[in-house]
Amino acid sequence: MNTKQPRVIIVGAGFGGLFAARALANKPVDVLLIDRNNFHTFTPLLYQVATCALDPSEIAYPVRTIFRKNKNIRSLLGMVTDIDYTKKSVTIQIGAQTVQEAYDYLILASGSVPTYFGQDAFRENSLELRTLSDAVELRNHVLTLFEEAAWEEDEAVQEAMTTIVVVGGGPTGLETAGAIYELYNHVLNREYLHHELETRVILIEMQPFLLAPYPDKLQQAALEQLRSLGVEVQLGSPVKEVTADHVTLADRTMIRTKTLVWAAGVKGSPLAEMLDVPLNRAGQVSILPTTEVPDRPGIYAVGDMTYLERPSGGGYPMMIPVAQQQGELAAENILAEIGGQEKRPFRYHDRGIMATIGRRRAVAWIYNKIPMRGYLAWLAWLALHLVTLLGFRNRLNVFINWMWNYFTYDRSVRIILEQGPQEGKASNL
Amino acid sequence: MNTKQPRVIIVGAGFGGLFAARALANKPVDVLLIDRNNFHTFTPLLYQVATCALDPSEIAYPVRTIFRKNKNIRSLLGMVTDIDYTKKSVTIQIGAQTVQEAYDYLILASGSVPTYFGQDAFRENSLELRTLSDAVELRNHVLTLFEEAAWEEDEAVQEAMTTIVVVGGGPTGLETAGAIYELYNHVLNREYLHHELETRVILIEMQPFLLAPYPDKLQQAALEQLRSLGVEVQLGSPVKEVTADHVTLADRTMIRTKTLVWAAGVKGSPLAEMLDVPLNRAGQVSILPTTEVPDRPGIYAVGDMTYLERPSGGGYPMMIPVAQQQGELAAENILAEIGGQEKRPFRYHDRGIMATIGRRRAVAWIYNKIPMRGYLAWLAWLALHLVTLLGFRNRLNVFINWMWNYFTYDRSVRIILEQGPQEGKASNL
Repeated sequence: MNTKQPRVIIVGAGFGGLFAARALANKPVDVLLIDRNNFHTFTPLLYQVATCALDPSEIAYPVRTIFRKNKNIRSLLGMVTDIDYTKKSVTIQIGAQTVQEAYDYLILASGSVPTYFGQDAFRENSLELRTLSDAVELRNHVLTLFEEAAWEEDEAVQEAMTTIVVVGGGPTGLETAGAIYELYNHVLNREYLHHELETRVILIEMQPFLLAPYPDKLQQAALEQLRSLGVEVQLGSPVKEVTADHVTLADRTMIRTKTLVWAAGVKGSPLAEMLDVPLNRAGQVSILPTTEVPDRPGIYAVGDMTYLERPSGGGYPMMIPVAQQQGELAAENILAEIGGQEKRPFRYHDRGIMATIGRRRAVAWIYNKIPMRGYLAWLAWLALHLVTLLGFRNRLNVFINWMWNYFTYDRSVRIILEQGPQEGKASNL
Repeated sequence: MNTKQPRVIIVGAGFGGLFAARALANKPVDVLLIDRNNFHTFTPLLYQVATCALDPSEIAYPVRTIFRKNKNIRSLLGMVTDIDYTKKSVTIQIGAQTVQEAYDYLILASGSVPTYFGQDAFRENSLELRTLSDAVELRNHVLTLFEEAAWEEDEAVQEAMTTIVVVGGGPTGLETAGAIYELYNHVLNREYLHHELETRVILIEMQPFLLAPYPDKLQQAALEQLRSLGVEVQLGSPVKEVTADHVTLADRTMIRTKTLVWAAGVKGSPLAEMLDVPLNRAGQVSILPTTEVPDRPGIYAVGDMTYLERPSGGGYPMMIPVAQQQGELAAENILAEIGGQEKRPFRYHDRGIMATIGRRRAVAWIYNKIPMRGYLAWLAWLALHLVTLLGFRNRLNVFINWMWNYFTYDRSVRIILEQGPQEGKASNL
């Protein structure tokens, strides 16, 4: 490796970090891409892994494989434990080892984590859907409860086992609620003929509307589509109490459930705290339009963990396209700085927002101008994801599999495979 | 469900239990099929999951899906904790519940578990390859160590991280050693260009020969093929000590390794102990030629957990075809008993034995008469597995995928996805 080249360290192989690395591929820099996983996760389809439509490996790409042909990009599986912005080095935990790596430029792209808005007690009895492990855990959880419910004689317990509460009226909440409803009613019930299992899927949103950033009409459309599918939607009453077998809302509604999926909100990655800069209430780092972190020379930050005021006011949303475009810009601005050219400010190319609600149901707000709903919006969702995916080499046939799984009602991936460290066995490290 | 029909409980959805259940499908009996997993595992290809060639779900079939169309077969995900052979009922743990289920006929088919021949201390630092979880654990373990080795500066530690010791010269040992060698040399090394990682795969067998039941010529052929591939084979010296970072043999050979795969032997499932009958040294139940358990009316046992003297002397081997054929026979004899016909004794249709050693390498002893080696034997192995798999509906295209993975050197399934119960999260139950 040519050590004379400037060293760029990228923390996080999500959409922001991945697009930054791709923009630096085969450029005159040495890149070190650090992530806790050895794969990139295509997060928009996590809910399909959680609901048995896809295999985990179908939405995860080994980072080393993505950059196999890019000699200037090294990959590291580890966790950043410290950033020394004066000495320009990061400390990384790799299994039992701790290594220090120096950088000339640092791109932080470690995304966001779920937030319980101070109610951390909720977390004890919640499942999340942010990582591939979360998705597999949710899948195991739902399938296992269904098996147990088949033999449960206490009706109250049985009800709790086959009732799922999804908290959060954003895209993740809608997609998960819709997909779980279809899993219950098109797949599981077919295979439990000997048992009469009542299933409920309930979506809870504390606001009086779903999909906050959408125009009223589409919020209404989403609500109607969810209800027409069969999902119960409870608006305007926040969760007050969460236990192992029930959830209580502020309006005293009590719901028996052993499965609460928390999709109510996220905050910036804790990594941001290592910069010793003030963070906003969402735990985000304020960045300059160039995606640089003020007063931290050589450090860039992109995506969910950052806050950047947009011309129309407010910050840019925590969305994949923002992370991708900021990641690319950070890379370009680093190359510009090296080449002595001028850095560009961030300009967001906004293709709009969309959310799916089960098969053939969706809402979309194309370019934040054209509203779409139902089947048409769903096709738009497919098209957009196809486009996004084609960014990856050889992903077309994977996408075809997805569509096959998605159009047919078959859910092949229904194995409950739990991977706990087993007693008296070598640990997974 | 017609409760007037005789009730057959099958314990174990492995090859023995599955074939018993299939023989009872749509017959005038009510069948309850109990397994700890909600899927059947195609164990001959576990080593391909462990070595990144296949996805776990590609060799696992949900039991409920297999019998979706058979109204007289119920499936139960749980663990049998007691058998009351006087009251004719079994106690089953289903999550937190305990249920009792009465039977008229009981078929025990819970297979075998690894044995460390009294050296249980070895188990602490060993990985196994008997279940799908084992396979995923081994895959995670190998991939994680490789990532860590890339950054390890202590050469002795690095050597231990990239050295794999497989104990046991049976088919599993050979297949695993061969496949791991190929994973190391055809896949991983390609993607670690920045690092010079020395890899070793060592197969240890305490006997002076591999594949005990095979004729000498084939034992020799297997040895030569393994060595020509690049696997180091150490014969005639048993393992004396196993620690977290090395293995010592009786002849004082010390091998630095953090990965020991134990494939040295198995014993009958502990379930056999619930019958209160004498077991042999391998923990197996002696059964009658009809597969009935002596002095235990209505109880049949099949497969690895049983011992049946074969005409040629010795017991039948712990092999899938034996389990399948005994499972079918147990089912037929139960139907015969119900119909007042005569029961048949077990007659083993022996197609011979075979073992693969990586691509295009194998040994086979067709019908225990025709010896085969190398490419031809490997094609025979493929053919046999194709035949076996076609027993399952719609598995042909899966098989085609396998062959594709297997012929190409691509190993797509390389994600390290650990599924531990996460702190402060709802457990997987």
